[in-house]
Amino acid sequence: MNLVEDLKWRYATKKMNGKTIPQEKLDYILEAARLAPSSSGLQPYKIFVISNKELLQKIKPVAWDQSQILDASHVLVFAAWDGYSLGRIESVFNYTLKERNLPLDTMNAYKDKLWGMYKPLGEDWQANHAAKQTYISFGMAIAAAAEQKIDATPMEGFTPEAVDELLELKEQGLKSVLILALGYRNEEGDWLVNMKKVRTPKMEFITELK
Amino acid sequence: MNLVEDLKWRYATKKMNGKTIPQEKLDYILEAARLAPSSSGLQPYKIFVISNKELLQKIKPVAWDQSQILDASHVLVFAAWDGYSLGRIESVFNYTLKERNLPLDTMNAYKDKLWGMYKPLGEDWQANHAAKQTYISFGMAIAAAAEQKIDATPMEGFTPEAVDELLELKEQGLKSVLILALGYRNEEGDWLVNMKKVRTPKMEFITELK
Repeated sequence: MNLVEDLKWRYATKKMNGKTIPQEKLDYILEAARLAPSSSGLQPYKIFVISNKELLQKIKPVAWDQSQILDASHVLVFAAWDGYSLGRIESVFNYTLKERNLPLDTMNAYKDKLWGMYKPLGEDWQANHAAKQTYISFGMAIAAAAEQKIDATPMEGFTPEAVDELLELKEQGLKSVLILALGYRNEEGDWLVNMKKVRTPKMEFITELK
Repeated sequence: MNLVEDLKWRYATKKMNGKTIPQEKLDYILEAARLAPSSSGLQPYKIFVISNKELLQKIKPVAWDQSQILDASHVLVFAAWDGYSLGRIESVFNYTLKERNLPLDTMNAYKDKLWGMYKPLGEDWQANHAAKQTYISFGMAIAAAAEQKIDATPMEGFTPEAVDELLELKEQGLKSVLILALGYRNEEGDWLVNMKKVRTPKMEFITELK
């Protein structure tokens, strides 16, 4: 199997069977998400891995009542920074430089350029930019799950403010962006499982400028 | 190799050597991008595959003068819809239903719900939502390139309005969102090639709520 085959295999699972996925597969999926690239390497997001059923009971009604929230093995909430700050940028850059055994002032000019660009754009722009990066990591988790033959449901259908409150994200400077339910399909109750996967035809999707 | 190994192998290539990648590898990368999931399956984006050097000469100065624009084999510009419309949603849903041999009114309630939700949010929100979906497809292209051992540079560093003008995107109802340069690394001129890959430590990246 390869990525293209994995992407053909996967689908947005509509009904899960409640079974638990192996820890090593969960770890693998999270590692792929962690390795995703992001703008300037800031990785302005975190993942909450939820299996606590009491908490999931509270999330379900604010996630359009989707059954996968309770029938998944684990529910991942991807949460992005609520904005950039010089401190946040510095913290990432300093860690990177330490790991690379480079002097801590190596990236000062770049850091100032970046913050000089981000600061005037304001918190809404910044939170949105951080949220966008999260989609790449989310994509890697989706691809990794498919590779491991773990079913997954990507979800934008939830009330972010309500999830933020349940996970106390505001206090952590974060905003919920995406949910990925991980588990196993329940074929009997899933209307989508046997449907043909449809995508924009190649001719329409791609424009070549040679 | 697997996705996690591929993601460890890849890096944001800073210097490319001008060599051309095989057509089948380019096709594979584009196919992974095409198969990416998106909100309600709308795939509100397209990819421009550019190898025309005259055009790339014009793109380079509006892409922070990054050398990879000219030294890449192909430059992919990911462009998202500039907004949603009932017509655009209908067109995708009708195609999907035809492909699935289902009556064209099967998704009417969902279509009305979706447009009822998107319409009042306005064009800026819509364009931004479409742009976010693009990041998932972009991530799949990055993963596919790594799997094929093709080097890639993900780029947000360009002036979208200028690229829109060069590609006549406005006329097509599109906005440029991301660039992915594809090619082969030039190790000698690349300051990043031998640097350790650094990511947020797992302990910090992941919060378990059991």
